[in-house]
Amino acid sequence: MNELAESWPARFTIMVFSALILIFTGLLMLPIASAEGVTTPLVNAFFTAMSAICVTGLTVVDMASHWSAFGNIVIVLGIQIGGIGVLTVASLLGLAVSRRLGLKQRLLAASDTNPMRAHHGPVSESQTVGLGEIGGLLSAVLFSVLAIESMLTLLIFPRLLMMGEDVLTALWHSFFFAASAFTNTGFVPTADGMTPFETDPYMLTVLGIGVFLGSIGFPVIFALYRFAKVRGWKRPSRFPLHAKLTLLTTAVLIILGALAIGALEWSNGDTLGEQTIGQRFLSSMFMSTMTRSGGLATLDVEQMNGSTLLVMDMLMFVGGGSASTAGGIKVTTLAVLFLAAFAEARGYQDIQAFERRIPTEVLRVAVSVVLWAATIVATSSIILLHMTKAPLDHVLFDVISAFGTCGLSTGLTENLPDAGKYVIAATMWAGRVGTVTLAAAVAASSRSQFFRRPEERPIVG
Amino acid sequence: MNELAESWPARFTIMVFSALILIFTGLLMLPIASAEGVTTPLVNAFFTAMSAICVTGLTVVDMASHWSAFGNIVIVLGIQIGGIGVLTVASLLGLAVSRRLGLKQRLLAASDTNPMRAHHGPVSESQTVGLGEIGGLLSAVLFSVLAIESMLTLLIFPRLLMMGEDVLTALWHSFFFAASAFTNTGFVPTADGMTPFETDPYMLTVLGIGVFLGSIGFPVIFALYRFAKVRGWKRPSRFPLHAKLTLLTTAVLIILGALAIGALEWSNGDTLGEQTIGQRFLSSMFMSTMTRSGGLATLDVEQMNGSTLLVMDMLMFVGGGSASTAGGIKVTTLAVLFLAAFAEARGYQDIQAFERRIPTEVLRVAVSVVLWAATIVATSSIILLHMTKAPLDHVLFDVISAFGTCGLSTGLTENLPDAGKYVIAATMWAGRVGTVTLAAAVAASSRSQFFRRPEERPIVG
Ligand SMILES: [K+]
Ligand SMILES: [K+]
Repeated sequence: MNELAESWPARFTIMVFSALILIFTGLLMLPIASAEGVTTPLVNAFFTAMSAICVTGLTVVDMASHWSAFGNIVIVLGIQIGGIGVLTVASLLGLAVSRRLGLKQRLLAASDTNPMRAHHGPVSESQTVGLGEIGGLLSAVLFSVLAIESMLTLLIFPRLLMMGEDVLTALWHSFFFAASAFTNTGFVPTADGMTPFETDPYMLTVLGIGVFLGSIGFPVIFALYRFAKVRGWKRPSRFPLHAKLTLLTTAVLIILGALAIGALEWSNGDTLGEQTIGQRFLSSMFMSTMTRSGGLATLDVEQMNGSTLLVMDMLMFVGGGSASTAGGIKVTTLAVLFLAAFAEARGYQDIQAFERRIPTEVLRVAVSVVLWAATIVATSSIILLHMTKAPLDHVLFDVISAFGTCGLSTGLTENLPDAGKYVIAATMWAGRVGTVTLAAAVAASSRSQFFRRPEERPIVG
Repeated sequence: MNELAESWPARFTIMVFSALILIFTGLLMLPIASAEGVTTPLVNAFFTAMSAICVTGLTVVDMASHWSAFGNIVIVLGIQIGGIGVLTVASLLGLAVSRRLGLKQRLLAASDTNPMRAHHGPVSESQTVGLGEIGGLLSAVLFSVLAIESMLTLLIFPRLLMMGEDVLTALWHSFFFAASAFTNTGFVPTADGMTPFETDPYMLTVLGIGVFLGSIGFPVIFALYRFAKVRGWKRPSRFPLHAKLTLLTTAVLIILGALAIGALEWSNGDTLGEQTIGQRFLSSMFMSTMTRSGGLATLDVEQMNGSTLLVMDMLMFVGGGSASTAGGIKVTTLAVLFLAAFAEARGYQDIQAFERRIPTEVLRVAVSVVLWAATIVATSSIILLHMTKAPLDHVLFDVISAFGTCGLSTGLTENLPDAGKYVIAATMWAGRVGTVTLAAAVAASSRSQFFRRPEERPIVG
């Protein structure tokens, strides 16, 4: 299995993900999985399995009432496997296998205190990934998931008790919420959905932090952990470039997004208009954070202005951090594109950030990911527009939400005909499996070339 | 003036364009410019002047009835100055001033038979542009405009005579059509607009060729001319990379666009549905060609399916060739992005096309142009969506049409409130002046740097 993962990283990931989705579709179709004890139709079981494994959170059935306790356990298992699986596979493929570098070296390089240990040029075959290293990575991922979700569960539990739930139900719902937030899925277990928490600063802050931690990605969590741990007895360690870029870009997107959503919805009576000033800030901040790909909603997306939907389209398209449970093209991809434009404007020879230079291949991978994303979103939108004749703002929003595995919805998805549900499901799949394996696959291809062609510059722009 | 153009290329272009627009606004406001002898309101005169100088072709008044003969002459003068000005300035800035290279060297390098003469590294200050070279370029541009527009006028003239127009009117209208097509403006002088020609293969082919020649750009026209001229007495000259990329990408976009438009509108009774099979192919091909940025319409854009509008949005966003009368991000920009992704996927060290390598700075300029374009389109769309509450498909279409100076419209633009007309006018301005000067400005900035920072790779995708 280790050799397979090494020689066929992209195909292996795609096979495992697809197999998982089929298994969970089968489980969800069992009569025991539905509350009424009937067989759930294939399209709905398939869509829900896809949505769970891809940690998207889009729904075509009522999640609070349709599934039995068994069904709910299957779903939570699906989002955990999906979330952890993506973390692991993305870390493995994106960091380790990609450049034929030792896994530990890659992880250390991405979160290292010593800039001299950063990678220069190709590395010998002997440094490829060993089974022990995969085990080490998996333990680290599992430990961080366990630690963060336990903390979130403990924070949410008293709030649900206060709402009048009994201890066992509150514990189960707290864990469901914690897993749903940290894996950036966005399923809600309670009957009234997010309604009881719409203006609750405590609950929204806890969920927001959960989504934020899930969205920044394992390499950044690992770097933050190292930074916090080492700080006490050593001089503050240098923070890796990847973590700096991820945190800065995420912060900029959340703040600008909140300002834009707040300004555009300020006087919309169906969303922010009736709230107090403080609630408007809280709601804007929460909705902006959810576009990283959390997908929980405290405002009715369908009632938002077209301008706000377009802003959220752009935010969801970007998504979260690399090697995270979030989707989209990833915040570092956006950052690298802007850094490239900035370098060109300033006349720098290299793309630079935080006193480091970023090699050109990274820009090429970023461009590849954006072209892939734009192609998927455009194709799905054109098919759905032609199929449903629905308005573009709703189609584009739900397609980008599916591609970025965000899970916010204008209500279009649940009313789609079966063929449309399959299109959205395929979009989730392409968004979840696609960007991760694409980035790994293009990065993993060999770059042996022994001559250079003569240079010639086409004019662009 | 020569020194000014050299030291402040971007600001100089912007100043000249803005001054031209104000002068033409003044001329169009004169009572003598309107058919009824009244003063045209500032917003409409400004919009029309902007649309003419930016060769966009969007309108807010009825072009066939609102303007007097004087007004029409002013407009044709505007599109000629706009078209030729853009050709010249773009060639000057993009090719010559940008890399501090001699103009003739640049133009020869971009259309040369000898690959060894292609540019390598920085060039001495003594090679900057001389006044004589600017004169030479201007003559070449003027000659090609004159030759091509005369040819088009002669081809259109008999068709209008056959329609029953008298000789002088037919000659004037033929010249107006020729200028409108070659400058990629898309204004129509005749009272019934394009209606009489909707199913006329001859007229649509002539106009299509005019738009095509205008959209590929001066450097490609120049290369084609050299190729045709030299072919007779010498071995076939090597065609420059820029010309190959432009022609190939344009052909691919026109053919794929026609297939998509044809397929999506095939059974739409308000557009292709009532036409014969042959007419459907002709109409699809013509509309696809017009998205390069010609802007003439034989189908009613407002009646098109949302899916078709989205396809045309993408085609208009790309636009035409660099240093051409067309707008958009330019076909070579798109080509370079795809070539970068392809190079990354294949593991090539360099971006390659037609046995030449394309330097990394070109990719960075391409990324800069796309980010600029996306920012302008998103900002304008958000403002107009918020201002008008119009549906996204119409807003996005007209904004991209304005940005790409295409001029096709869903009918939104002419019904906008004054503030909205100014937003569309600003979008045209940013699209026309922006991409050209941006590409030149970022390319012109010095790249002196004497040390390189340590390398570090963020994870993307
Ligand atoms: K989600
Ligand atoms: K035009």
